[in-house]
Amino acid sequence: MSAEGYYRGRKVMITGGLGCLGSNLAHRLVEHGAEVTLIDNMQEGHGANRRNIAGIEQAVKVDICDIRDSAAMLGHVRGAELIFHIAGQTSHTDSMKDPFPDIDINCRGNAVLLESVRAANPEARVVYASTRAVYGAPLQVPVTESTLPNPVDIYGADKLAAEHYFRIYGRAHGLSTVILRLSNGYGTRAQIRTPKYGILMWFVGLILRGEKIRVFGDGAQLRDYTYTDDMTRAFLLAGENPAAVGKTYNVAASEQIRFIDMVKKLVEVAGQGEYELVPWPDDYKKIEVGDFAADCGLIGRELGWQPETGFEQGLRETFEYYRDNLEFYVD
Amino acid sequence: MSAEGYYRGRKVMITGGLGCLGSNLAHRLVEHGAEVTLIDNMQEGHGANRRNIAGIEQAVKVDICDIRDSAAMLGHVRGAELIFHIAGQTSHTDSMKDPFPDIDINCRGNAVLLESVRAANPEARVVYASTRAVYGAPLQVPVTESTLPNPVDIYGADKLAAEHYFRIYGRAHGLSTVILRLSNGYGTRAQIRTPKYGILMWFVGLILRGEKIRVFGDGAQLRDYTYTDDMTRAFLLAGENPAAVGKTYNVAASEQIRFIDMVKKLVEVAGQGEYELVPWPDDYKKIEVGDFAADCGLIGRELGWQPETGFEQGLRETFEYYRDNLEFYVD
Repeated sequence: MSAEGYYRGRKVMITGGLGCLGSNLAHRLVEHGAEVTLIDNMQEGHGANRRNIAGIEQAVKVDICDIRDSAAMLGHVRGAELIFHIAGQTSHTDSMKDPFPDIDINCRGNAVLLESVRAANPEARVVYASTRAVYGAPLQVPVTESTLPNPVDIYGADKLAAEHYFRIYGRAHGLSTVILRLSNGYGTRAQIRTPKYGILMWFVGLILRGEKIRVFGDGAQLRDYTYTDDMTRAFLLAGENPAAVGKTYNVAASEQIRFIDMVKKLVEVAGQGEYELVPWPDDYKKIEVGDFAADCGLIGRELGWQPETGFEQGLRETFEYYRDNLEFYVD
Repeated sequence: MSAEGYYRGRKVMITGGLGCLGSNLAHRLVEHGAEVTLIDNMQEGHGANRRNIAGIEQAVKVDICDIRDSAAMLGHVRGAELIFHIAGQTSHTDSMKDPFPDIDINCRGNAVLLESVRAANPEARVVYASTRAVYGAPLQVPVTESTLPNPVDIYGADKLAAEHYFRIYGRAHGLSTVILRLSNGYGTRAQIRTPKYGILMWFVGLILRGEKIRVFGDGAQLRDYTYTDDMTRAFLLAGENPAAVGKTYNVAASEQIRFIDMVKKLVEVAGQGEYELVPWPDDYKKIEVGDFAADCGLIGRELGWQPETGFEQGLRETFEYYRDNLEFYVD
């Protein structure tokens, strides 16, 4: 489980490298002595933020390009020993308003990445950031990796299609691919300007801007909010451990909490903020999935991963980060 | 189970209407008195063939357009009470040589169709022709509709993604969608010029042209070849029965036969032809799935569908059709 030695001097590429997960991973990899290249398209309204690499600007290489740019990707994947592929369209609601950008990024874009690796660097290991959204409205709780997927939005369907692409390129073309199905993430370096990419982080922003939180419905649904540091450890283990190749792993907190209790805890830890209950807006209600919890036994047994950050501790670190850096995350 | 009365006077649209399944369905619908419009892009090398509608040319309307053409589709879906959506990229091997056309047709194109129905005709019932390829290398045999999909080629992954689109548009937007997972089809009005869209039909063509059949490996894999007439009956039932809305059904022959025995039966029924065993070519071996059989109990119980055509009978009708029409199906 000591990733430090493994990553020293390794050439690592991260797509979506200026976003929340990508940049947190970059900070860990720099600590471990890796040679890190960050790819990001800096798409307006998504999570990319130059502030996310404050302190490691000189230690990493940043290339602004899109995973859908085949020529650019062919060049970038060459020479990378590990590729942490995190870039993607991640808004559930946007994918339902207009499915085509999601299809273009999460289906076609992922195929561009895989074709590039197949052509230019088939020896690289590629770790793909998938999502609990593939389970959609879960057909059993907790879900295991063999629970039948039941996506309820185009985002979930396309992320699932891309999972299959990664498996297919592993099976048919010999690529070394690993899939992580990430649950609701929260923590440092996330965007807090819009509710589209994680409600909890949107609420953090509302609290810090002194605005009231609106909870849809009664907030009784269970969620497993997973801290960024725990997620980045899962990526490091998936990139290192030979047992991970060809596998799919759930990555989620071991605690579940009701949505309304998450909100109360945010207010408690922040020491400020207020909320109200409002009816479900139609576009959210249509894709609400009910209770969710993931069984993470497989990644525990095979890679030794466990979540280590309790919810309250994670929230304290989160608020500390945004209070120190708020000007870079609000308009 | 009497489709005749139900379809009389109904406005029915068939995408891929000049292909094998679409045209066979059109012949049945015309018999039943439906007002039939056929949509087809006549894409070179795919299955569209004007000969397929010989005898019903005056009874159907034909519009040459692509399901990816949003403006055209918006116009065409308006007014259709039923849409049998069969158009698609269907070559497993092509999807592995170049994934992008498959993604463009089977992901984006299906979303164009669904967005058109959502915008212009949300009351229509849409029956989607999916495929056993979503099961890929089956994780259990026989597969049921709740067997975990395991596609081994991009075609299977994209057809599965589109299945989810149909479910999602049903759940979120109230569309009336039905999904049929079709097994290896064979029969009348299929193309026999290339092995890309069904090996059995390619073999039929080889026999009729006096060319030798090559069987890859030992031919021991089990398949469930399903006759076109049985498939078209499944479409008619799925379009008519209220119980079908929101459902996914396997559609396959009840008999399984080893690949090599299928070849022997072809030669026997045709009264001509020869074959040889050759090693697997790499591009086929990579996506070979082993034995396949589908449990069709669900569509039997809910819609009363059963395969009715034995394999030998289906082959006799197939050879009879091509002997009468060979000039229209070979170059």
